[in-house]
Amino acid sequence: MTPNPADQAVIADFHALSGFGETERGGVQREAGTEPDGGQRAWLTQWLSSRGFTVEFDQIGNQFGMLELVPGAPYVLVGSHLDSQPRGGRYDGAYGVLAAAHAANRLAGLWRDAGRTPQYNLAVVNWFNEEGSRFQPSMMGSSVYTGKLDAETALATRDLAGVTVREALEDTGCLGSGRGPEAACYAEIHIEQGRILDEEDTTIGLVESTWAANKYHLVVHGEQSHTGSTVMADRQDAMLGAAHLVVAAREIADAFTETPLHTSVGQMLIHPNSPVVVAREVRLHLDLRSADENVLAEADAMLHERFPEIEKKARVRIEKATAHSWGVLSYNPDGVKLARSAAEDLGLSHRHMMTIAGHDSTNMKDIVPTVMLFVPSVDGISHNEKEFTKDEDICAGVDLLTEVVSRLADGDLTG
Amino acid sequence: MTPNPADQAVIADFHALSGFGETERGGVQREAGTEPDGGQRAWLTQWLSSRGFTVEFDQIGNQFGMLELVPGAPYVLVGSHLDSQPRGGRYDGAYGVLAAAHAANRLAGLWRDAGRTPQYNLAVVNWFNEEGSRFQPSMMGSSVYTGKLDAETALATRDLAGVTVREALEDTGCLGSGRGPEAACYAEIHIEQGRILDEEDTTIGLVESTWAANKYHLVVHGEQSHTGSTVMADRQDAMLGAAHLVVAAREIADAFTETPLHTSVGQMLIHPNSPVVVAREVRLHLDLRSADENVLAEADAMLHERFPEIEKKARVRIEKATAHSWGVLSYNPDGVKLARSAAEDLGLSHRHMMTIAGHDSTNMKDIVPTVMLFVPSVDGISHNEKEFTKDEDICAGVDLLTEVVSRLADGDLTG
Repeated sequence: MTPNPADQAVIADFHALSGFGETERGGVQREAGTEPDGGQRAWLTQWLSSRGFTVEFDQIGNQFGMLELVPGAPYVLVGSHLDSQPRGGRYDGAYGVLAAAHAANRLAGLWRDAGRTPQYNLAVVNWFNEEGSRFQPSMMGSSVYTGKLDAETALATRDLAGVTVREALEDTGCLGSGRGPEAACYAEIHIEQGRILDEEDTTIGLVESTWAANKYHLVVHGEQSHTGSTVMADRQDAMLGAAHLVVAAREIADAFTETPLHTSVGQMLIHPNSPVVVAREVRLHLDLRSADENVLAEADAMLHERFPEIEKKARVRIEKATAHSWGVLSYNPDGVKLARSAAEDLGLSHRHMMTIAGHDSTNMKDIVPTVMLFVPSVDGISHNEKEFTKDEDICAGVDLLTEVVSRLADGDLTG
Repeated sequence: MTPNPADQAVIADFHALSGFGETERGGVQREAGTEPDGGQRAWLTQWLSSRGFTVEFDQIGNQFGMLELVPGAPYVLVGSHLDSQPRGGRYDGAYGVLAAAHAANRLAGLWRDAGRTPQYNLAVVNWFNEEGSRFQPSMMGSSVYTGKLDAETALATRDLAGVTVREALEDTGCLGSGRGPEAACYAEIHIEQGRILDEEDTTIGLVESTWAANKYHLVVHGEQSHTGSTVMADRQDAMLGAAHLVVAAREIADAFTETPLHTSVGQMLIHPNSPVVVAREVRLHLDLRSADENVLAEADAMLHERFPEIEKKARVRIEKATAHSWGVLSYNPDGVKLARSAAEDLGLSHRHMMTIAGHDSTNMKDIVPTVMLFVPSVDGISHNEKEFTKDEDICAGVDLLTEVVSRLADGDLTG
């Protein structure tokens, strides 16, 4: 079957977008505020401007492509993020922004042709730094937009090379001012980052709630010494303490066989990280996630029981620098119904599901009615260059997002 | 007791030298080829030149202060290294270079006053990059001098920021040419980096041999994925594999209760090291050391037995990138006798011992007769800002080194 021109345009644009920061193995590397991130943002500005959208950056570099049809009315925001992990996949975030741009552009055309205006204005959004690999915390742009994070604090955050968010935004020409357009509601589409839709051969995931999560930033304090000559019993080895934490996190996950618990340590900053020095300090991020708050609480207790034992084994002190946690949080149930009805009308297979990963929609749902949609990701591969979603799912997702945003713009969810 | 002027000069110079790269907590940070390393090398050039020594740098930045008294004769080399670990101690290496300078200068005066010439010429040496924290391998300068490492390979080595040894040497004005003066024999004095002399209240350690060591550069290969959403069973977590190696190394050390085995992992390079990405690759240095070659062989076998088990647990592949090992290696026994006799003549308490840490003398002993001496280090603290050696031991060490070098220059060891 030859794809229709609208689908062809989505696929062609997705290929163009995937060229920014492309890696040898078919992935992308465009961390927030880097040169390829600036490049793709300029590309999006051009794409939106040439189609009649007014593009603006807010105080934290969120990029908005606005279509003001009802002077003074709030906006339906639709989008995701273009930034990626180092050697990340092409679809994560970028697909959602591109789908939003195509959905908004289609609706603009439909409304123009029909000579009618919706209840709300419409804006495509590309949130700044959702990934949080270069600058922590993740979901930075939507956190500032929703008032959960102070803009000045975010702008002063430094990457490991000492560059601030403010400098990175200035360097890429993406530092604006103000707080962006006022939102009436929000919609986002994303690849699943799990195997459920792929294994069940279902096209659409209707996200009902988040997994619960406890995230810790831990500092293991030891004492620097010579790796060779220091007597083993004298060592206060921060690296050993950190290694025990990594192993403990995995053992705790393996203890839950009925309801899955996900645990991980993805980053360690080791000081001084010299081959011949016992580490004096290791800073690491450890997180626990589950769909069941009771499982999470039990796992958390198990982790805390391990701390004194690890402190004794490695002769270190474990400091909890920051802790960030959330429960199983619902998306707007009427939004789920609206999206299900739209999927049914388009004849797309669908199922309700939870999201394990965080998204900008996780922030947005706390301030406005929010719809979150998933499309399948083959083998559930995520944060990896091999991430892949089929063109037919890409296109079906854009069709559904267009229908959902159309209904949101007409006030179907907000009355 | 008021110190004599010669001792006062040693202590005063040691304080001056400790100002280069000094840290808030009384240590020093002057990794090889950094600005403070360049500063202290310029200071040493000035110190030696003003006392009649000819200062030259060789092709790998080893610094020589030469006193040519017997035209064309080879040199007694005496020295150590001025570079330090990050937040290292003031004594490690630097004491040995300063002691060498004072010993050489005293002998120059004695020979001048006595109107006689020794059998050999005399040169103070400050070896480049003994520590190996910024550029690997450690003992780089003496490895090139002794022909164990190719100069071009060493010059092309990069630090983590991509700077080459050649660039660092050029930037600090320390890149010379040639192979330095020809050595007839070598002497070095160093702090013990262990507790034995301190606990036994002995002033001098006469080093008979090295511990045996097996050093591995291991690469743990995993697969990048999302820390939150990836099903635990699907993960191929390089960080988990590395953590198991760190824990295994410690468990293996703890298994040897009779004869000590020292094991450690001091450095890990984690990719991509993002808080929300399961690591695809971790590169680490793991080493095993023992005074007993049989213990080392047994420990090494235990380590290798753990590899497949860890590969299975973390679903990773462990690659041995490089391996470097040595046995229990003797220093020249006549050199030990010569040093013992000198210590007895000076009335200094002494004992025979082994060195666990590597030193430039470990390289030099393979090409010329070499004497290695230790002075006590309080509580055996090493590679730490709290490293401390008493002034009286500092001064006794210089006295002994002067006597040893005097005998070496007169050909007592080389006939």
